[in-house]
Amino acid sequence: MMGDAIGAANAPLPPSRGVLYGVGLGPGAPDLITLRAARLIERASVIAYPALAGADSFARAIAADLIAPGAREIVMDVPMSTDRAPAQAAYDKGAAAIAAALDGGQDVVCLCEGDPFFYGSFMYLFARLSGRYDVEVVPGVTSITACAARAAMPLAARNERLTVLPGPLSEDELRARIADAESVAIMKVGRHLPKIRQVIDALGLTDAAVYIERASLPQEVVLPLADAPENAPYFSMILLTKGADPWL
Amino acid sequence: MMGDAIGAANAPLPPSRGVLYGVGLGPGAPDLITLRAARLIERASVIAYPALAGADSFARAIAADLIAPGAREIVMDVPMSTDRAPAQAAYDKGAAAIAAALDGGQDVVCLCEGDPFFYGSFMYLFARLSGRYDVEVVPGVTSITACAARAAMPLAARNERLTVLPGPLSEDELRARIADAESVAIMKVGRHLPKIRQVIDALGLTDAAVYIERASLPQEVVLPLADAPENAPYFSMILLTKGADPWL
Repeated sequence: MMGDAIGAANAPLPPSRGVLYGVGLGPGAPDLITLRAARLIERASVIAYPALAGADSFARAIAADLIAPGAREIVMDVPMSTDRAPAQAAYDKGAAAIAAALDGGQDVVCLCEGDPFFYGSFMYLFARLSGRYDVEVVPGVTSITACAARAAMPLAARNERLTVLPGPLSEDELRARIADAESVAIMKVGRHLPKIRQVIDALGLTDAAVYIERASLPQEVVLPLADAPENAPYFSMILLTKGADPWL
Repeated sequence: MMGDAIGAANAPLPPSRGVLYGVGLGPGAPDLITLRAARLIERASVIAYPALAGADSFARAIAADLIAPGAREIVMDVPMSTDRAPAQAAYDKGAAAIAAALDGGQDVVCLCEGDPFFYGSFMYLFARLSGRYDVEVVPGVTSITACAARAAMPLAARNERLTVLPGPLSEDELRARIADAESVAIMKVGRHLPKIRQVIDALGLTDAAVYIERASLPQEVVLPLADAPENAPYFSMILLTKGADPWL
């Protein structure tokens, strides 16, 4: 018994499990990263991020200047498809690689565009890993307030409501929701732009709407909705306010 | 003519006007300030901020460690009152002091809790000054995503809608809006907590709701709504999601 106890004391302790950090990076400008997120990224020896459909990772590009040389990078190649199974498999595989690093006692910093819990793909890793590991989420600046800042458009004050709608919703649903709303932010405009413009036009609200793409980046575009281009990128948004008196 | 021209060339140029920065500070933790906001605050020779009802300014407290010694501080004492005239007068006075600094060629950094255009009092300064001066808004982390991070509660994914409601709305309106929503964030809960709880209870959604006060601060509270305290501070929020499958 004595020998056993001494043996147990001398055996190397299993490493304590690492922590998974889901870190919001904000809308795209590297200096809209928070101080906390910047510190976590600079110190990370393992980072993870999604890359959509074989393209370079937008999340990695935002954080590029902060990533330590020699940090290990877990890249999740997420196909863009209406069929969810391929993306699900990519997150399964990414979660397994992250879990292995956490089991080995390493912290993992997962880079997330915008905010991790606001239309972010980090939610899929959170669903897979939060039951088994410590997960800490660092909130980030969302595209909504970044777009409002660049459009010089106050979003909501006092007792006003704000409604956030994804662009892929059906024409009928968009019409009903926008008609019923005060301030509206429409996310993920992309190829849904013609449909959304038609709905807003029919409601007579075009003059109250602004189109923004790639807010805070050098390629940023801010235009009245009436002047929006024919083709919108995925990272585009429409903001619409029905004009409460902003004086007080 | 010659003399006139020489005289004009020798006369001191009027200083170019300063720029007003509306700087979002995030939910309260000083390291949830963005790198851009931190740099602007550190370099500011004139800062401005509201202080509610004679209390210490929450905005100033968040940024305190970044404010340069010797910076001039323009404090706007905003009374809490349902009558808007006293607050309006406070913003008039603050705007005049800021305008004088801008006319003198100084930039002014206005400190804003959360995000300046998301239920922020900066909107009242923006309404008064943006017609005459260059104003730049730096977005910040909103209380909504900060609360979601602390409650470990993904807010919205894929094609889900998010509805932001102020707590002072009437019981009937809250009931109708929450019933019709997918994910809901209720801001400014404070003394409206009993009314909001009653509405959420009646809708059978209490188990889906989380109460959060002072997210990201040392005094933070995160509780199932059923366990929320009797008295909620102004900076409290309820998040409610109707539970879409978070797996993908």
